[in-house]
Amino acid sequence: MEITVTKTTAPKAKPDFNNLGFGRIFTDHMFLMNYDEGQGWHDARIEPFHDLTLSPAAMVFHYAQEMFEGLKAYYTKDGRILLFRPDKNIERMNNTNIRLCIPQIDPADALEAIKAVVKIDKDWIPKDEGTSLYIRPSIISTDAHLGVKPAKHYLFCIILSPVGAYYPEGLNPVKIFVEDQYVRAVKGGIGFAKTGGNYAASLIGQQKAAELGYAQVLWLDGIEHKYIDEVGAMNVFFVIDGEVLTPALEGNILPGVTRNSSLALLRSLGYKANERRISIEEVFNAYKNGKLDEAFGTGTAAVVSPIGELNWEGNKMFINNGEIGPISQKLYDTLTGIQWGRIKDDFGWTVEVK
Amino acid sequence: MEITVTKTTAPKAKPDFNNLGFGRIFTDHMFLMNYDEGQGWHDARIEPFHDLTLSPAAMVFHYAQEMFEGLKAYYTKDGRILLFRPDKNIERMNNTNIRLCIPQIDPADALEAIKAVVKIDKDWIPKDEGTSLYIRPSIISTDAHLGVKPAKHYLFCIILSPVGAYYPEGLNPVKIFVEDQYVRAVKGGIGFAKTGGNYAASLIGQQKAAELGYAQVLWLDGIEHKYIDEVGAMNVFFVIDGEVLTPALEGNILPGVTRNSSLALLRSLGYKANERRISIEEVFNAYKNGKLDEAFGTGTAAVVSPIGELNWEGNKMFINNGEIGPISQKLYDTLTGIQWGRIKDDFGWTVEVK
Repeated sequence: MEITVTKTTAPKAKPDFNNLGFGRIFTDHMFLMNYDEGQGWHDARIEPFHDLTLSPAAMVFHYAQEMFEGLKAYYTKDGRILLFRPDKNIERMNNTNIRLCIPQIDPADALEAIKAVVKIDKDWIPKDEGTSLYIRPSIISTDAHLGVKPAKHYLFCIILSPVGAYYPEGLNPVKIFVEDQYVRAVKGGIGFAKTGGNYAASLIGQQKAAELGYAQVLWLDGIEHKYIDEVGAMNVFFVIDGEVLTPALEGNILPGVTRNSSLALLRSLGYKANERRISIEEVFNAYKNGKLDEAFGTGTAAVVSPIGELNWEGNKMFINNGEIGPISQKLYDTLTGIQWGRIKDDFGWTVEVK
Repeated sequence: MEITVTKTTAPKAKPDFNNLGFGRIFTDHMFLMNYDEGQGWHDARIEPFHDLTLSPAAMVFHYAQEMFEGLKAYYTKDGRILLFRPDKNIERMNNTNIRLCIPQIDPADALEAIKAVVKIDKDWIPKDEGTSLYIRPSIISTDAHLGVKPAKHYLFCIILSPVGAYYPEGLNPVKIFVEDQYVRAVKGGIGFAKTGGNYAASLIGQQKAAELGYAQVLWLDGIEHKYIDEVGAMNVFFVIDGEVLTPALEGNILPGVTRNSSLALLRSLGYKANERRISIEEVFNAYKNGKLDEAFGTGTAAVVSPIGELNWEGNKMFINNGEIGPISQKLYDTLTGIQWGRIKDDFGWTVEVK
C-alpha cells in the first residue's frame, strides 16, 4: 500500500504529559483512506489532524453504520515503541465489518497504516509509567442518502491520543451495579461487534449506575437477565474457589484482546482459567459461601480493573475487602510488563514500530 | 423561540419532480440548533443547506449517540401545506432522547422549527400524486472526546428532501423473508427508539433477504425468535379471519405514527383491530387454514405496503394471490386521503403550515 504523507506545517504544542486524561488530546496527524463502490479502498494518506466535512444526510449520522477499534502504542525504557497484538484488533475490525456490512480492509494494509501514523507522531507517545498513545481506528459510512441500506462510500480514519495512567494513584477497586432492566446487546445482534450502537444502548445504564454511586454497570444477558455478559466497556472475570472464570463468547459480548490475553497468560502461569456461562446467582452463591475470591474487568484502557463491590438487586457483595486480589495483581503486572517491554514477551504478542 | 434566518444567495435548480426517488435530493435550507451543557438548546437558525464540520473524534462517529425522526409535508390540491401528526413524531423524538441520554427539546420549539424550515423551502414540495417533502430531524453528539459517556454538546438538524411516490406503478405487494438468526432489537434495549444502532443492526438481515430474492425482512423477537416484531423499517399488520392484528408495543419495536393512525382509523371504520403478541407460528397456522386474509407494513415512507409472500424457514405463505387486499386498500386510500387533504380529517391529525 502506498501512503501519501502530508506533514503539518504548524505542529501543535505538546500537552502536559502529567495531566493527559483519556481521549481528549489528539496528535498532529491522522491516517485516512476512502472506499468507493467499484473502486475499493484507495487514497491511503497521512494528513495533518483536521475536522471531517460531511453532508448532514451522511448515513453515519442516521443509521450508525460505523465501527471502531482501540489499541495502544507503548514506549519502553530502552526507547522502543511497541504495539500489543494489533493483529487481534485488525481481525476483530474485519469481523465487525462483516456484521455491519462494511467492506473488509486488508489486514496488512491496516497494520501498515497503524504503524505509519504512530511512527510519524512518535514524539507524542508519553514516556511516564502507565502512560501510552491510544490508537483509534474507525470507519464511517459517508453516503449522503437517507435510504436504509449498506453505504457505498466509507472513510477509514486513524487518530491518536496520548493518554495518562488509568490508575494514577494505584489500582483502586471499583463499585459495580448489576443492571437487570436495560439491555446492552443480545445474541444474534451486534454485541460482539465494536460498533457505536452497543455503546449508545449502554449510556442509560451507566447514567443510572452513576446516580446510585456506582462506577460501572455489569450487564446481564438480554434474554433471561440471568447470565453475566460484561462490565461497562470491559470483559469481566471472577475468581471462584481458586478458579478463574469469564463468560464464554456466544455472540453478545465483545471478544476483548485483553480478555483473550488474560486467559492465555493465566493458563501459562498455571491457573485454572475457563470460559463458560456464569449466572449472577452463581456469583452471589459463591459470595455467600465465602468463595468469591476476586473479580475484575479487562480492557485496553484499564488493562485490569479490580472490582471491590457488586450490587445485584440490593444484594451487596464486598470482594476481597475492597483490595486488589493476588491473581488480579499478578495479571496486571505481567500484562503491563509485557506491554511496556519490562518483561520478556514469550507469547510473541508485541510488535515493534521501527 | 427566535430563529435567525440566513437565506441562500445561490438557490439550487429544482430537480425533475417526476424522478425524485427517496432521500437523495435536498432543498436549499436546513434548520440547526446547538446544545451545550449549562446553556441548553440555543442558536436556533435556518441556513443554506451545507455540510457539517466535525472532529474525527466526535462521539457520534464512535458511540452512535444519535437519533432521528421522519415525517412529511404534503401539498393539497387547494394549495395548502399539511403536516401529518407532527406532535407524535416530536413526542417519540423526546422518548428516544430519554433512552439515548440526549437532552429533551421543547415540543413547541421543535414544531416551530419544522414549520419554519418547510415554509422557507415550500417551493420544493412536489405537487404530483403521491409525492411529498420528506422532513428529517436528527440530533448528533458532537463532543471531540473518546470517553464513553453521554455527550455535553449536540447538534439538532432538520433537512428536507422532496420524494417521489413510493409506488409509482401502484401498490405492488412485496416478498418478505422471516429472519430467525439475526436480531434487530430486544426488550430492554433501544428497539423502541428511533436511533441509528437499530438500523445498523438490521443491515445484514436486509442484505441476506435481498440475496435470497426478498424485498424486506420480518424480524422476530430477540428472546425466543418466535414472536413478530416488525418488517424492515415498518410496523406490520395481519388480517386473520377478519380481525386486524399488530404486535403490541413491548419496548422492542418502533411505535410508528402510521401504526397508531392505522389502528385508530380501522377501529373508526368498524374493523376489529387489536394489538397483542403474535407468533409466526400463529400466522403460519392461519395461512394453512385459509384464514390469513391480508398482511401489510405501515410507515411514513410507504404509508401502507402490502405483503404478497412470507417465507418462514422455507414455509412460503402466499397472501391474497399476491394482490392488495380490501382492508389494506381502504386503509391506504383513507390515510393518504387525509394526508393530501382529499378526505376530511375528522381526527384532527393534519397541521397546516401557513
